[in-house]
Amino acid sequence: MPIRIPSRVANIAVAQFDILNSRAAELRAQGRSVISLGQAVPGFGPPKAALDAAAAVLPEHVTHLYSADAGLLELREAVCGYLSSRHAVRATPRDLIITAGGNQAVMLALMTLVDAGDDVLLPAPYFANHEMAIRAVGATPIEIALTEEQGFRLRWDHLASALTARTRAAVICTPSNPTGAIIDPTDATRIVEELARRNIVVISDEAYMDFVYGAPHWSLASLAAWRDNVVLVGTFSKSFGMTGWRVGYMLADAGVTTHAVKVQDAMIICATVIAQRAVGAALRETPDYTSTFLPEFTRRRDVLSGRLARIPRLHWVPASGGFFAFVRVDGCTSSVALASDILERAHVVTIPGATFGKAGEGYLRFSYGTATSDQINEAFDRLEQYFRLRTDSS
Amino acid sequence: MPIRIPSRVANIAVAQFDILNSRAAELRAQGRSVISLGQAVPGFGPPKAALDAAAAVLPEHVTHLYSADAGLLELREAVCGYLSSRHAVRATPRDLIITAGGNQAVMLALMTLVDAGDDVLLPAPYFANHEMAIRAVGATPIEIALTEEQGFRLRWDHLASALTARTRAAVICTPSNPTGAIIDPTDATRIVEELARRNIVVISDEAYMDFVYGAPHWSLASLAAWRDNVVLVGTFSKSFGMTGWRVGYMLADAGVTTHAVKVQDAMIICATVIAQRAVGAALRETPDYTSTFLPEFTRRRDVLSGRLARIPRLHWVPASGGFFAFVRVDGCTSSVALASDILERAHVVTIPGATFGKAGEGYLRFSYGTATSDQINEAFDRLEQYFRLRTDSS
Repeated sequence: MPIRIPSRVANIAVAQFDILNSRAAELRAQGRSVISLGQAVPGFGPPKAALDAAAAVLPEHVTHLYSADAGLLELREAVCGYLSSRHAVRATPRDLIITAGGNQAVMLALMTLVDAGDDVLLPAPYFANHEMAIRAVGATPIEIALTEEQGFRLRWDHLASALTARTRAAVICTPSNPTGAIIDPTDATRIVEELARRNIVVISDEAYMDFVYGAPHWSLASLAAWRDNVVLVGTFSKSFGMTGWRVGYMLADAGVTTHAVKVQDAMIICATVIAQRAVGAALRETPDYTSTFLPEFTRRRDVLSGRLARIPRLHWVPASGGFFAFVRVDGCTSSVALASDILERAHVVTIPGATFGKAGEGYLRFSYGTATSDQINEAFDRLEQYFRLRTDSS
Repeated sequence: MPIRIPSRVANIAVAQFDILNSRAAELRAQGRSVISLGQAVPGFGPPKAALDAAAAVLPEHVTHLYSADAGLLELREAVCGYLSSRHAVRATPRDLIITAGGNQAVMLALMTLVDAGDDVLLPAPYFANHEMAIRAVGATPIEIALTEEQGFRLRWDHLASALTARTRAAVICTPSNPTGAIIDPTDATRIVEELARRNIVVISDEAYMDFVYGAPHWSLASLAAWRDNVVLVGTFSKSFGMTGWRVGYMLADAGVTTHAVKVQDAMIICATVIAQRAVGAALRETPDYTSTFLPEFTRRRDVLSGRLARIPRLHWVPASGGFFAFVRVDGCTSSVALASDILERAHVVTIPGATFGKAGEGYLRFSYGTATSDQINEAFDRLEQYFRLRTDSS
């Protein structure tokens, strides 16, 4: 008799990224030139300050020992300083838990604040891992469909109509992965206030806070009353090109972190210490690192936008954040089949919109985080041919 | 209105380690000489091979990127090789997920296999983080009291009488933290078979597998039928002196890991990559690293045993594994109060037995992982005086 897998877990879908990436690896192994516009990672590596610090602390015994569950105090202080100076977030190290990346921060927040059987509001298209995490803790994700016509804008009305007696939290992603949409501060203020009144927590994943074009990022934790119900999730994976290092954070009032740190202890004890020290050095020495890449990202975005415009079936209204385009495909009813077919025939990795919820069906996500302008052009030479040969729906 | 903390989380007790360590740090800051026989970490650092590998891969771009959710294939292969050659465990990389330490492996196993409301059998004295993790996923820890008179031996009878319709798993720790007791292979075989028949999973935390004295470690995953219901948890935190690096693993039949990897993706994506690469190098180059420290640990154990024998109120029957003594204190009814008083007056950190469940009340855990023989002697000079002055109970 095989080990029983609870339906809660069995029903979690495997991330499409993984399936497509595996197939891309097979094609590459067969000698195909595959261009990835798939994974939402930046192409740049860590700042020199991070790598220098890692090398410098490698011989120190303290690097090999657990840190406090909440993370090294000097890193928490550096994160508070960064959030204050760049994003107008007022917090102290007691409000902060250093996590093994943004996902662990979301999981920590959910496990600390949401019980099995609770409802969690999830504006969609959503980041797939948010939906998976909500299911993993036994809660029910309530998909709130946002529309392209409204620029994927989230308003209080969307959430108000979905509230139940079991609603415990909402998970918001701004800038959004996959759409790049940014929450409007007026909308967000209303949402946070209305939810606070109902004792509902807002988990705000702002992993792409350093990838905003044309205006500064606006954080939900910059609200004066953030402590009432906002939990901020951040990560250095994207900002410092350190996805493999696994360092992020969860910010919440100390009344929450006091309890969350117990869950943290039982979940991972602490984030990897050499990684904490590397990120701490980067925050102190090169906090503006990401901004040096934004001109290049803007160029890629322009190339992508221009090339998308030349394929009649594809439609994109550029969004203000992130490094991806969430592109509507005329006549597409199965984005999973389409992305798979594009990979097989054009050798370009894109992510099917259905990965991000029902509201994402009929879309493809194109990331320009790792692809250069030349690669984007090459990918679109192939895609133009692909779509020229297929005026039928798929 | 403060953010509501579910009772599930509010009721998790803060680990006593942290409270005592904080107080010890305060005393040290006041200039006191505090000797720690507290935390269960080894005093030695990582093997040179691990640090050399970390330095060597630091400039490589792949070090900065996510690995597969399940971990680097070469590390999974190395772990399989190690488990096969040293512990007679037959498994493939498909059965393995590299985790951010042993705790994350336990949390991953529980979250994958146990629903909120399920019962989880927990032989006690237990490792406190196991109890916390069971509560964190909303399950109920069912404490199975083991007794010192029987050498903290776990037999099938103990579990049989605690089964309910809701029993989904048992969490076993061998060698045990805190008692050092080792499960008897005959007992374990019976337990695994009986539980398999009832579709109940055995999560076997063998974090101290490389710290066994006088005989080789025996792993529950070495059973021919392990795939039916055994989930093995291991870590390199202790064996390689790398607690701060956060690398461990969960081993289960691929039918389980296929689902667990989805939870892993939503929980941490992957373990820190530079840490995975460092551990991989150490496994390949110095798999026997821990054994070079066992003679020293044996000496410390002898010193500890000899000194304990000179304090009439303290009683210890040496166990076969780990690096701690779980010591009965005559007349002690509050081990928390006693450990606190010892810290205040004798400046020695010990861990109160009640941390490890009701079955641990009246005991103190003494770790000899970091303390040298000289430090143990100094600590016991103080403890002899402490107990000489107090023949009363506390």
